[in-house]
Parts: sequence; C-alpha cells; structure tokens
Amino acid sequence: MEVVTTIPELKEIVNKLKLDSKTIGLVPTMGYLHEGHLTLANTARKENDFVFMSIFVNPTQFGPNEDFESYPRDLERDCKLAESVGVDFIFAPTVEEMYPNDGGIYIRAGRQSEILCGASRPGHFDGVLQVVAKLFHLCEPTHAYFGQKDAQQVAIVQTMVRDYNFPLEIRTVPIVREEDGLAKSSRNVYLSEQERKEAPAIFQALQIAKETYLTSQDVHNAIELATKHIETNSSGRIDYLQFLSYPDLTQVTDETNHFLLAAAVYIGKTRLIDNIIFHTKG
Amino acid sequence: MEVVTTIPELKEIVNKLKLDSKTIGLVPTMGYLHEGHLTLANTARKENDFVFMSIFVNPTQFGPNEDFESYPRDLERDCKLAESVGVDFIFAPTVEEMYPNDGGIYIRAGRQSEILCGASRPGHFDGVLQVVAKLFHLCEPTHAYFGQKDAQQVAIVQTMVRDYNFPLEIRTVPIVREEDGLAKSSRNVYLSEQERKEAPAIFQALQIAKETYLTSQDVHNAIELATKHIETNSSGRIDYLQFLSYPDLTQVTDETNHFLLAAAVYIGKTRLIDNIIFHTKG
Repeated sequence: MEVVTTIPELKEIVNKLKLDSKTIGLVPTMGYLHEGHLTLANTARKENDFVFMSIFVNPTQFGPNEDFESYPRDLERDCKLAESVGVDFIFAPTVEEMYPNDGGIYIRAGRQSEILCGASRPGHFDGVLQVVAKLFHLCEPTHAYFGQKDAQQVAIVQTMVRDYNFPLEIRTVPIVREEDGLAKSSRNVYLSEQERKEAPAIFQALQIAKETYLTSQDVHNAIELATKHIETNSSGRIDYLQFLSYPDLTQVTDETNHFLLAAAVYIGKTRLIDNIIFHTKG
Repeated sequence: MEVVTTIPELKEIVNKLKLDSKTIGLVPTMGYLHEGHLTLANTARKENDFVFMSIFVNPTQFGPNEDFESYPRDLERDCKLAESVGVDFIFAPTVEEMYPNDGGIYIRAGRQSEILCGASRPGHFDGVLQVVAKLFHLCEPTHAYFGQKDAQQVAIVQTMVRDYNFPLEIRTVPIVREEDGLAKSSRNVYLSEQERKEAPAIFQALQIAKETYLTSQDVHNAIELATKHIETNSSGRIDYLQFLSYPDLTQVTDETNHFLLAAAVYIGKTRLIDNIIFHTKG
C-alpha cells in the first residue's frame, strides 16, 4: 500500500492505471476508520482492480460551530486498517493541497439538502458535493463506495452523479447492525448501559413503520405507531422520523414505489440515525 | 463523421476510445457554425486522435427574455462544415436527452460571473458551467477548446476546471480578426456600411489602452485615452471597457501581471465585444 499526499503524485498513479484500463474503486472517508469504512473497502476490493481510499477531513462540510478542529484524526492507525483490507492507495492531502484557490464557484445541493439531517446543518451537503466532485475528478474511479447509513448523503451524491453525468457508478453498502438490530456507529460508545439497552427501539420502530405501511398504505398511521414504540420503549427524543421517496427525497405520493424511511433520535445526549430503504412495486 | 444524439450511443464510443487510450478533443458549440468554431475544430484536429463537437443550444444559459427559441439552428449545414475540418463525432442531443431530471443541484459561477457580460445576464454563466460540466463528463475529453473572444467564459470555465480538478486541459484559440482589426463575429453582418467603418475603433482603443498602461502603469489614464478614441472615431456607446486581472477577473492591483482588457461597445444597435490578454512580467 502506498500513501500519497499530493495531487501530482496521485495523478501520476491514476493516469498510469487508466492507460492500462484498470478499474478503480474509491472509498471516500474522513479517516478515523471503523467497521463501516472497512466494509466499504472490502466491497471495493472485490469489485475493482485497484482500491483508493481518501482520508481527508473536509473543512467545507463543517459549519462554523461544528467540530472541524476537534474531529478525531489518526492517519497511522487508519493506514494499518486500510492495508489490512487490501486498499492499494491512500490519498491523504492537506487542506492546502485540496483548496489552494477559491475562484468563487460553488455547487449548491438544493432542496434535497434542506430536510432530514440537512435541516440543522445548512451548507453541509454543499461542502460534501464540493469535495466529492473533486475526489471523483482526481481519482477517476470506476466505482465509488458510500454507506447506506448516511442515506441522505448517498441520495444527494447519486443525484449529482446522475444529473451531471459523472462517468462512474455509485455503490452503496447496507447498514451493518449489532445482534439486537442497532445500527453500528462510532457514536454507540457514548451510550450508557441503560441507553444502549433502549437504542434498538429505533430500528424496531422503523420496521414497525415499514410493515404498517405495507399493510395499510397509511403513512400517518405508520409514523404514529413507530413514534409510540420509541416513546414507550426508550427515553429517546425524536429529531425526525419520516417517509420520503428515494432517491429524490421528495414527499411521498400515490405514485411513490421506492421509499426512504429515516429516523434521527437522541438517546440521552447521543444523536443516532438509522434508515430502511424499500420498494413496494415495479 | 458520425452524428450521435443519445447519451448511451455517445458513451459507447467514448468508452471504446478510452479503452484504446486515445486522446479526445472536444469543441463545445451551440451550432450555427462560423469561422471561429472551425478554427477551434482545426486546432483540436491537430492536437488529438479524435475530435468531438457538441452542438446543443443549451436552454439553461438563456434568460427568460432571451432568444432561446429563436436562436438560429441548422444541423445539416453544421454537419457539412464540421466534416470539412475533420470532426469525427458530432454530439447533438435534444434538451430532453440532456436534462431528463432536475434534482435541484446547481453550480453557481459566483463573483466572476457578476461583472462584464455577466452583469446584464444573471444566471447565464451558471447555465454555461452546468452544460460544460455535463459535456466534460459525457465526452471525457483530453482537451477542450474555447475561443478567447469570450474571455469571461474561458476564465470561468478555467476556474471551474482548476478548482474542481477536472481531468482535462482547456485550450484557448486567439481571436480571429478582419484585416482592419475588427474581431470576427456572426454579428458583424448586422452593421451598416458606416458602422462597419467605425467598428475597428474598438480594437484600436484596446491597443491604445494596453500601450498606455505598459508605458505609464496608469489604468485610469489608459481607460480615458481608449474611451476618447472610441468617442472620437465612432458613434459607439461603451457598455464596459475594463482592465481586470486574468484569469481571476478580480480588480487590478500592484501585484497583477496577467491582464484582461475587455470591451463591449454598441455600434448602432449591434453590441460587439473584444479583448486583449497580456502579461507584464513573470
């Protein structure tokens, strides 16, 4: 495995692989790798000749009061983990290397970014699209890998790839869960013993909402039963619990047949997110 | 020469050429080709294995009161002209083919687009960047060709390519001029005999401004002498006549050593643009 930190080094490698018509899988990350990232890299490993992982804490997706400075970083540990799952190249640039100029041209993520997690993080998804577009152009991947856990991020990136005809395919990897159904997350360690016992109520509630909808086609009833389940079985405070059409993230209509059912719930002080994506027909 | 109208056809050709490691030159146009376009195609022909020309009147770069509907179109004539200069593939999609979805993600051209020609055409350069980004992803060119006559467009496209790391090079082709110095333009035919005699005053004024600046480093004086030249030698009404740093299009400072000197002048009812780009040092 090779670690590259500059764009000229990276382009030399990419250009050589392209000349040899090799397929490239890209796993974009902000580092501090956990099992989710390694699952993405594992999948990329199976589907491509070469696997690139970018490790870059992207300042443009953090709000002014967010934790850009304190975001955890450990490149040495990340490199060992990445190597263990067969990553070929790590691209770990500095902020200077990624943003040496600012010509004032920005991508605006638009309406898909104004709901769910985006509602409380204005500009977040603009920054995500900015860095993702740059990484796509720099690494020229055949496939790029994103976790389905961040369903809104995946939907917005997929929309950009579709609407701007990026020459690559987005691959999503399903949510990895604990035995009791709780979605794996770096943040689960923040939960107290009691909170940890309550946290599976989120995924249970999503399943209740899905089953209720499939039986009754009644979104309102489905949300009500799911909300009740969380309120009865945990001390959780619901930030959102919503059906949307996927991947547009628009309101559900009679025509909708591809759904995102997404939740964000505070269990104590810890905000956990989870989702289910499902089809009804066609 | 082959004319393709759908994205799947185009991608099949591009993917095959890429597998064979061929270089691709792209000449993006809105059709109704004139000598300027053919000069671009000629240059592309010399520098690449294959030449693509896109012919697409892009609705998103026209304002609501502009002439999208009446913009001249003649695909048959364009194809003959393109073939005569060695274009290999014409990509002439419908609006439906280019914009089947609208996920609400937009590129904003920002401060570079708010001056010069952009001041009177809000949103114009946003639409240019949208279609150019799509064409770059669709055709995956090694080089893309733009005329220096539209200096602001070139500067903004170059900024996007630089700041978003598009894997291609922008090539610019110098302004083609009549014997008396008037920049060639489809619009010159609108000039009356008297106006045609006056029109070279624009390029003369730009030369006066450049020489004055090089001698005195006095922008104000340079603009004043150039303005006087146009006023004395024509009935022209100046829309703008400006020094900017190039390619940023920011105000000139003591540090500036790469200049765009640009003018837009109404001669009668015809708005003509022209520019000179020059270095002082470094």
